[in-house]
Formats: sequence, C-alpha cells, structure tokens
Amino acid sequence: MVGVGRLLSESVGIKIQVRPNDLDSSGHVNNAVVLEYLEAGRWSWLKHHSLAGGKKIIPVVTWIEVNYNREILFGELTVSTKLKESDTPLYYQVVFEQLIEFSTNSSTTIAVQALVKVAFIDSVERTVRSVQDFMNNMES
Amino acid sequence: MVGVGRLLSESVGIKIQVRPNDLDSSGHVNNAVVLEYLEAGRWSWLKHHSLAGGKKIIPVVTWIEVNYNREILFGELTVSTKLKESDTPLYYQVVFEQLIEFSTNSSTTIAVQALVKVAFIDSVERTVRSVQDFMNNMES
Amino acid sequence: MVGVGRLLSESVGIKIQVRPNDLDSSGHVNNAVVLEYLEAGRWSWLKHHSLAGGKKIIPVVTWIEVNYNREILFGELTVSTKLKESDTPLYYQVVFEQLIEFSTNSSTTIAVQALVKVAFIDSVERTVRSVQDFMNNMES
Amino acid sequence: MVGVGRLLSESVGIKIQVRPNDLDSSGHVNNAVVLEYLEAGRWSWLKHHSLAGGKKIIPVVTWIEVNYNREILFGELTVSTKLKESDTPLYYQVVFEQLIEFSTNSSTTIAVQALVKVAFIDSVERTVRSVQDFMNNMES
Repeated sequence: MVGVGRLLSESVGIKIQVRPNDLDSSGHVNNAVVLEYLEAGRWSWLKHHSLAGGKKIIPVVTWIEVNYNREILFGELTVSTKLKESDTPLYYQVVFEQLIEFSTNSSTTIAVQALVKVAFIDSVERTVRSVQDFMNNMES
Repeated sequence: MVGVGRLLSESVGIKIQVRPNDLDSSGHVNNAVVLEYLEAGRWSWLKHHSLAGGKKIIPVVTWIEVNYNREILFGELTVSTKLKESDTPLYYQVVFEQLIEFSTNSSTTIAVQALVKVAFIDSVERTVRSVQDFMNNMES
Repeated sequence: MVGVGRLLSESVGIKIQVRPNDLDSSGHVNNAVVLEYLEAGRWSWLKHHSLAGGKKIIPVVTWIEVNYNREILFGELTVSTKLKESDTPLYYQVVFEQLIEFSTNSSTTIAVQALVKVAFIDSVERTVRSVQDFMNNMES
Repeated sequence: MVGVGRLLSESVGIKIQVRPNDLDSSGHVNNAVVLEYLEAGRWSWLKHHSLAGGKKIIPVVTWIEVNYNREILFGELTVSTKLKESDTPLYYQVVFEQLIEFSTNSSTTIAVQALVKVAFIDSVERTVRSVQDFMNNMES
C-alpha cells in the first residue's frame, strides 16, 4: 500500500458546465446536484489514475460531508479532487477531499468543500472488498 | 424563540417511491439522489408546520453530513425529519436530523442518517435573514 | 403473438408525488422530468404484467412524442400506461400510450399525453432482440 | 416578424460532457437526460442570439418529438440547435430542430434527432404571450 500513497497523490481538476436543469425553483444549483458534480470529479480522478472502467469491483460512497459556502449560479465550475492524506494505511476505504470553484467575471471563489468516504463492493456478490482488490481488478 | 423549540419539535415522516431514474449504473440509488429524498422530507416537515410556500425568504442548505449505511434498491422508503435539539437559541440557522428507512419483505433497516444545516436568505436581495424573519414571512 | 395482444391490453395507473427537485427555475416541473414519470409508469406496467426484472434483455426507448398540455406544479400525479392497439403483429417494438393527470382541489386535467416506442436489446451483446425474446426471457 | 426569420437562422452548437449520473441502470444515458442536453442546447441558442436572461416572459416546451437513434455512453457530445424554417409567420410559438452527435475514437454519429415546440408565458400571470412579446422583453 506504500505505492498507493505515493502514486495516487495528485489532485485532478475538471471543468463542469452548469446545465439549466441543475437549477431548482430558487434559481440556483440545487444541493443534490452538487453531489453529481463531485461524482464527476471522482470519475475524472479515477480515470486520470487509470482506475476507471472496472465492472466487477465498484466504488460506493459511504459517508459525505459538504460545506455549501456560496450559491452556484449558471456558469462554469472547476471540481478539484484529491485523496486525503492519512497516516494509517488504507485497507477498506479511501477519503477524497474535493473543492468546487465558481468563477464570475471578476473573481473565483470556493463554492463547495467536501469530504467523501468511498468503499468498494463486489458488484455481483454485493460484498465489501479491499482497496487493494479494487486496484488489482483494474490491472487484470 | 422559545416557542420555536416547543412547537416545531415533531418528527414528520413521508413515504417516497424510488423511481427507475434514481438508479445509477451500479443498479442502486445514487448518492446524489438521496439528497433529493431528504429535501422532499424537509418540504414535508415545513408543510406540516405551516412553514411552506413563502416566496420571499427561502431556506438554503449550508452544510450536510450523510451516512450511507446500506444501498437502496428499487422499492419504497420512509424519510423522517425533525429539528435537532439544541441548548442554544436558533438565530440564523437550524439543523435537521433525517433518517431514511428502507423496507424489504422481511425487515426494515436505516439506510441513511443525515444532519442538514439550513439558513435563510432573501430570494431577491440574496442576503442572510434570521429564523424569525423566515417564520414571520409565513405569517404575513 | 396473438396472446400478447390479448393479455397485455390492460391500462396500469400509478400515483407519483412531485419532488421539490423536479421543479426548475420556472417553478414548475421540468419537461425532462416528465420523462422520468413516464418511465416509472412503464416499469409499473411491466411489473403488473410480470415482465419486470429481467437483466439480459432490456427495453430501450427509441422514439417519443410528448404533448405538454399544461404546466405541472407541486402535488400528486397519476400516470396511466397502456399498449397502443395495432393491427399488425409486434415483432421488434411496442408503442405505449401514456397520460399524466394532475389534480388540484377542484379538478383533474390531463397535463401530458405521450407515445413511446420501445425496442429490446441484449444488455451484454448490445444487439436488437424481438418482443418474443423479451417475453421468453421473463419466463426463464 | 420578417426580421426574426432572417436574424435567428444560425445553428448553434455546444459541447456537453456526459456525467456519471446521466447513466441509468442499463449503463447508458437515460432517455429523460437527453432532454436536459436539448434544453442546454436551446439556452445556448438563446444566449447566442441575445435572447437569454429575461425573467418576465419565459419559454416553455409544449411539444417534443425525439428519435433516439443509438445509445449514448460516457463521453462528449455536441448539441446543435436551430430554428425550423417555416413558410408561415411565427406568432405564438417556435419550433427548434436539434441534433445530438456522439463521437467515439473512430467516428461521429447522430445519436438523437429532435423537434421541440416552444411557447412563451408570462412568469407571473401564467398567461400565453407572443414571440414578439418575448423578444421585446429582452430588449427592455
């Protein structure tokens, strides 16, 4: 697992365009839609680290904490995703730190800060698998 | 604000039917969709307490913590919503405690536990308002 | 295929609760969300006729025509789904006729009328299959 | 209205990134989500023609016909939007022709073809307004 910590430490950013349907009746991006943006960020992180596309062992979100610092309006966002550093080895779950930045003409502010805990399950047997199982699954 | 604590202490439950579109490519309800269920629960809580329908001062989610204890499959859920008790008066935000229970033929389990912090803004001026402003808004 | 025409002719209705997230920035149910309601209606129809749950051969929408007669607001809907009658046998696709009715205190009106053409594909091979293959798949 | 036909005749294209949440339990983009892509295309068309952003008179979809030619997988799409040409003047509604193209490594194919009829309503009074009212609304 030493390798995991070293190789997977990069932060990955993607740009996301707000869609008209992301806005709710308050006229701003709904709090549930923000989790769609975060998920797109994690898929991008997985792809960047060549961990996307496995069908047998899949990541599932088990816990999430989200700070909605400011409302998001129609426009373009950046979602940044990185693994949270940890002193202890990662056996059964990983924690992602994610940020959503929203730019207007004059400035860029952090609209959302999130921590997302992800575990891994066997998609057929619905049983918990280790981080290492997930990574081996990719290599095969 | 003493009155708020007393009158708004009831837990409100609603039943929600999972829709086919709530399932993602893993075949279970997506983590973002769970926040839609929680929002439906809060609207139901507001309606039960005659606090729904105001257009000028609207509730916005500022922080959320969600435990996804088990996956949710196609079926029927119950969302329970109550105000988290607090020793200190509520001036600018409230915290909801919410549960989602999922029933199968044989048993009912808690699928999701959530804490949701809600503040209030003026929908036109986009400025922060107090809990009391929100409640007065309903009465007018 | 005679049997198909005879046995599958019932109209199936389900009730759907509008969710807060179904409303867009205009304050009414978004036109895309209406297709989620229609899909829930078709799943209900399939379940009623014991045609739900097959994993290998799955229905896919190939064509849709929707009349949005009036806007849908927060409330409860009924989605009715039946097979469109046809003089010619159904080999590779079926057409559903669907209605969404919206009730207010005083009256019920038809908010949406839709025709939906559905074909069947093998979920692994991504090839077209016949209506009969789909039905046999259920029986096995 | 002569001017409308002349000035608004350009086709407008935007790129859309499929999000993980757009995929349903079949593993491809859900038919309802396709309407979100089409709406994003129309907003882009409105913005290109300086017709976006009015709050008082808003466009609403009254009819839609969609051909789903092939399934859409995770990747990038292009949505093209133009006004359907008409011999008769446009008083109360317009019809958009929209295409969604999906590119894989080797080729680009038309995944979706759609016709979308749009009318205009006063967002406060909920009454029908003319195309000309909508356009004047922008200018003010």
